[in-house]
Amino acid sequence: MTLILSNEEITDLLEMKEVINELEEVYRDLDIGKATTRRRSDSLVPALHDGNEAIYGLKSMDGISPRQGFSAVRLNSDIITWPIIEGNLRRVKIPAAPNNRWVGLIILFSTHNGEPLAIMPDGVIQRMRVGATNGLGIKYMARESAKTIGILGSGWQAGTQLLAACNVRDIEMIKCFSPNSANRLNFTQEMTEILGVEMMVVNSAEEAVSGVDIVLCATNSIEKVYIESWLRPGIHISSIKMPEIEEEVLKKCHRVCLHYGQQRPDTVIAKGLVPPDRRLGKGWEANRTFDYGSCPLLSQMISGKVKGRKSDDEITCFINDMGIGLQFAVTAGVAYKKALDAGVGKKLPTDWFTENVHP
Amino acid sequence: MTLILSNEEITDLLEMKEVINELEEVYRDLDIGKATTRRRSDSLVPALHDGNEAIYGLKSMDGISPRQGFSAVRLNSDIITWPIIEGNLRRVKIPAAPNNRWVGLIILFSTHNGEPLAIMPDGVIQRMRVGATNGLGIKYMARESAKTIGILGSGWQAGTQLLAACNVRDIEMIKCFSPNSANRLNFTQEMTEILGVEMMVVNSAEEAVSGVDIVLCATNSIEKVYIESWLRPGIHISSIKMPEIEEEVLKKCHRVCLHYGQQRPDTVIAKGLVPPDRRLGKGWEANRTFDYGSCPLLSQMISGKVKGRKSDDEITCFINDMGIGLQFAVTAGVAYKKALDAGVGKKLPTDWFTENVHP
Repeated sequence: MTLILSNEEITDLLEMKEVINELEEVYRDLDIGKATTRRRSDSLVPALHDGNEAIYGLKSMDGISPRQGFSAVRLNSDIITWPIIEGNLRRVKIPAAPNNRWVGLIILFSTHNGEPLAIMPDGVIQRMRVGATNGLGIKYMARESAKTIGILGSGWQAGTQLLAACNVRDIEMIKCFSPNSANRLNFTQEMTEILGVEMMVVNSAEEAVSGVDIVLCATNSIEKVYIESWLRPGIHISSIKMPEIEEEVLKKCHRVCLHYGQQRPDTVIAKGLVPPDRRLGKGWEANRTFDYGSCPLLSQMISGKVKGRKSDDEITCFINDMGIGLQFAVTAGVAYKKALDAGVGKKLPTDWFTENVHP
Repeated sequence: MTLILSNEEITDLLEMKEVINELEEVYRDLDIGKATTRRRSDSLVPALHDGNEAIYGLKSMDGISPRQGFSAVRLNSDIITWPIIEGNLRRVKIPAAPNNRWVGLIILFSTHNGEPLAIMPDGVIQRMRVGATNGLGIKYMARESAKTIGILGSGWQAGTQLLAACNVRDIEMIKCFSPNSANRLNFTQEMTEILGVEMMVVNSAEEAVSGVDIVLCATNSIEKVYIESWLRPGIHISSIKMPEIEEEVLKKCHRVCLHYGQQRPDTVIAKGLVPPDRRLGKGWEANRTFDYGSCPLLSQMISGKVKGRKSDDEITCFINDMGIGLQFAVTAGVAYKKALDAGVGKKLPTDWFTENVHP
């Protein structure tokens, strides 16, 4: 049987602690070349949305975790627009599929016999693995005694960022800022309940990050949200998107660690098409001055090749610069095993997704 | 509704002529950068099959055809072994999934709203697009008056090679050789019926290719099967695999055209793993002396940028060196449209494969 899982089922099944633990083991395998992951690919062509200029994007990434016996491909089929929201240029995926839905899929395979074990949406898995990855950044880089968090952002990613942070450190207080006051209030109320930790809504980014041990940047901004003048000794800064952190910040850090910094996506763009962020030259890439190439990777830190922090005074930063397919093999694998145990999911005949003729 | 199609349904729906015609249009788009395709990626890790050394491979490729409004990802999840069969080292995919089946899937999306339109096995589509592609090679390179074919190989790919050739030229006689005499006899009987063309079984490769207008190499050998001393003026040689043609043959050709020769797969291999063909150094890659880089591509020939053949005396060769994801978007798109029209396929709720949370 091949399982079809829903985001609701995955939400009920997946626990952040398990995802962090499993990913931690597999990053060690990745570091020694036992697990593999291939760089993301993005293909872009012009499209229309409601008569306006948009882009159709097909994105894919994959990875193999022999330790678990899983491989996975993660696929995204997106209609993308670039509106300006609250003064910032943003990249927005439109839920253009029937019933106003997005399209992100994970196909999970067995490395033992190749069979397709499960098909599931990527939304919940995606934020769990981003959260777990930044959580590992915190585990290996933040002060052991870190107790306070300032979070910038209150969207889809912000929740799992907090969940992961609270899993790896004993957090006692969280301050939250995001530009929309209703959003940040709702988010804070919801997360206080989930985390059982005191949370405060504040009125500026500076207020949120002031005096805290850990700063979590969890926005979808493609412009900087954390700046140099806010830096204090001993802080750990965690980011889910490269442009969030001003480069002057990175130059002051004693250690900047990237998730998977060496590689750029394999990008194929229809001739003449230039996505608006590149066209406007407003992206972080236009004026890079920090040497990202010299940063160690998360897998090297987890394997012990480099140390995240040498003293409580050091300033550290983890940038989740780019996702990898291996994260989906690992996280979807955890969800699949738990779904099997719990008898959850729609069961379809595996023969529907295999064949008796040579591929 | 998202359609689940089977190979049997696709076999009934797809006609070679439609696939050739649609691909021909889309290669023109590809040549001017309107359609996109990203290079294949292969990830390989060690595996076991029946206790013996094997390799698990996860392969993917994708492409977007805006003209049709389709994009597709093709995925293969394979257990691979390298036995020596009838004296030749072969790369064999084991049908290791439940019920002794292989695992190859195509996920078809709409470029208009991103939705997953269909999921189908890749087997029938795969051989149809290989056949159609070599058929386009024949259309643009073989003599207009070509009437006879010698085919080397009687396996899964050989049938569509003949079907495509007979679609683009008025073929009157076909000679067939493959190492296994039972296979070549069965194949010839089956194809005579399908094509309505006289077919002869012969006892050697040399006999098969002697005196014919078109040679079709359609084997899964990773060693040469067509050699220089068999060359005659005016012949067109068609190959589905780079190592099939001796390089001295290519040097004598007036025109060698590749399907998509510029790019190598994006290969990720677990550390220390060396597939047997590379280990033995027996592959064609070990001793390349022909300049493949100077060959035009099929899309350039179809768009009219280069001519396939200038006179009836010239020797031409088309090598289907590497598949591209775009072929799957095009061919699966044709199958999907026909399935919709015919009301064929299992219908699953599209909501199962989309989501209401951000990917």
